[in-house]
Amino acid sequence: MDYPPNKKPLHFRIGEYSTKVEFPAFEDLLAPPEGVKSLWVFDQNTAPLFSSREKASIILPPGEEAKTMESVEDILTAGIENGLARDGLFIGIGGGVVCDMTAFAASIYMRGSRVILIPTTLLAMTDASLGGKTGVDFRGYKNMAGTFFPAEELRICPDLLSSLPERDYISGLAEVIKHAFLVKSDLFEFLEREREAVLLREPQILGRMIRESIKVKGDFVERDFREQAERAFLNFGHTFGHALESVSGFAGWSHGEAVAWGMDKALKAGVLMGETDPDYARKVSAFLALYGFRLEAPGIDPEALINAMGKDKKKREGKIMFVLQKEYGKTFQSEIPRDILQKVLA
Amino acid sequence: MDYPPNKKPLHFRIGEYSTKVEFPAFEDLLAPPEGVKSLWVFDQNTAPLFSSREKASIILPPGEEAKTMESVEDILTAGIENGLARDGLFIGIGGGVVCDMTAFAASIYMRGSRVILIPTTLLAMTDASLGGKTGVDFRGYKNMAGTFFPAEELRICPDLLSSLPERDYISGLAEVIKHAFLVKSDLFEFLEREREAVLLREPQILGRMIRESIKVKGDFVERDFREQAERAFLNFGHTFGHALESVSGFAGWSHGEAVAWGMDKALKAGVLMGETDPDYARKVSAFLALYGFRLEAPGIDPEALINAMGKDKKKREGKIMFVLQKEYGKTFQSEIPRDILQKVLA
Repeated sequence: MDYPPNKKPLHFRIGEYSTKVEFPAFEDLLAPPEGVKSLWVFDQNTAPLFSSREKASIILPPGEEAKTMESVEDILTAGIENGLARDGLFIGIGGGVVCDMTAFAASIYMRGSRVILIPTTLLAMTDASLGGKTGVDFRGYKNMAGTFFPAEELRICPDLLSSLPERDYISGLAEVIKHAFLVKSDLFEFLEREREAVLLREPQILGRMIRESIKVKGDFVERDFREQAERAFLNFGHTFGHALESVSGFAGWSHGEAVAWGMDKALKAGVLMGETDPDYARKVSAFLALYGFRLEAPGIDPEALINAMGKDKKKREGKIMFVLQKEYGKTFQSEIPRDILQKVLA
Repeated sequence: MDYPPNKKPLHFRIGEYSTKVEFPAFEDLLAPPEGVKSLWVFDQNTAPLFSSREKASIILPPGEEAKTMESVEDILTAGIENGLARDGLFIGIGGGVVCDMTAFAASIYMRGSRVILIPTTLLAMTDASLGGKTGVDFRGYKNMAGTFFPAEELRICPDLLSSLPERDYISGLAEVIKHAFLVKSDLFEFLEREREAVLLREPQILGRMIRESIKVKGDFVERDFREQAERAFLNFGHTFGHALESVSGFAGWSHGEAVAWGMDKALKAGVLMGETDPDYARKVSAFLALYGFRLEAPGIDPEALINAMGKDKKKREGKIMFVLQKEYGKTFQSEIPRDILQKVLA
């Protein structure tokens, strides 16, 4: 099938903020904003992509190790040194970590300045950069400290994905697939039909897939910016997934791989609880397996996983709330009885 | 005159938040909230005031030196160690620094938890604790990093002020007086008429004065939470005052003393610019002098002050915007020409 490129910007109203999603060509990605002091935030992966480095900029270390309060402070310091005032602009170019650090720093710089994000990974394009969640890891807990602070503009250029390592691409795909499960739209069917083209990263396919995925995410965020209700559905697979990432020491399992595994476990638990349609759960397992996701985690201690879940910050009144589904597009939150947890993790 | 105590709570709608101001008796100040995990934040001055220390608590160092990112991180760590979840409650008991640190930490703890503030100084009761501005000093700049995060509840007990050091009491009075200048209300006349009783801290007088002052502040904050317009009027005297605090090394001039000096300078500049009614400016000078405020800063270099103002974070498009008044209750923002600045500071 043919999917003509659609470069029309998307607009989201997010609480008291608004976010415009642009789809510029590669050569327009770094267009400097006019008439305002700005600071560009790269990581060591993205800095070499862009040659025009005369701009005020800071380079963070690559990867999750940079997701610290120290990085935030380094960005604040660079902002001060480059003379940014309260109306100054922070521009983050990179994966989820760079986007998170840049937006967190901007959100507290003089109690809130301006931010533009240019995500360079599939995960950041379809998930991390939209919706204003920022966060640093702290005392061993992921995203323990952070803010809600949406970027005023996202610049999405799928061409950047051609050079993304396969593992990172697949990790991002898990969040796209999650969006497809959560809302009845063309996306699920599209991902089934175009699996080969998706895995080959065909440009038209990527453009279409990312746009649809952003629309799903944006819709959740518009309806519930502060995650007091259905935005939490976006955490589908994440309570299981975060526990697996944590117990496996953030090695061996990428975030997306852990989330895919977690979605499968959540549906299996739902089936045992009599809540989830077994046919739907089987269909999801098969779908994830076809995309190459691992659905078993051999050698991981179930009790260690359950302990790690107890530290999940999405607790309400001391209870761990899991995101479960009854069927395609029908999502809810619930505790999972301990014996069922043990069974699905065994 | 007689001012019967009015203990009726005040309610403010602040952006998407709301703040309830309670006026409990001293013995009810530390009533623990029910059914939620909480962390109490003291400083070394306030901790001994309260004996029931079996509660989960943390003690910050006293004074401005505690206004750091490290203090915020210490509070976050204590929150984690005491098992606070996203619905956990941080309760700050102390002056402006404790209130700021507690609210900042709560605002980023799991991207925003809950906060109650119990201000124990006049400055914190009438100004710092209401309106959600939080901030730490950073790289030598005051309040360089922070958030807007109003407390859900303030507990105000003027009895606490009987033991406040004189200098701190007078510092807080400057902000009360500022509120009186900004809005036409009974407050200005009240402060003129009851000056002796105010300076003697008579309980009924304090209760009335603080309540009226909170109403003025709350009204500004309700109308313009994010300080995009008239909330900035609350910075009257502050661009001058912050510069004086900074140049004098935060010694010799308390915050309130510097602000009182700054309001006088702002009005004098306004007179030279042909904007301010000279009679009003003279009346304010006399009023401030009667309250014992110093209106001259001998030995302070005018050029150093002007340089320090250039670092004020309330710049717009590179311009330093001062808060000025035409007359009582008529406030506006403007630059001040350099030659006039030099003249009033000479």
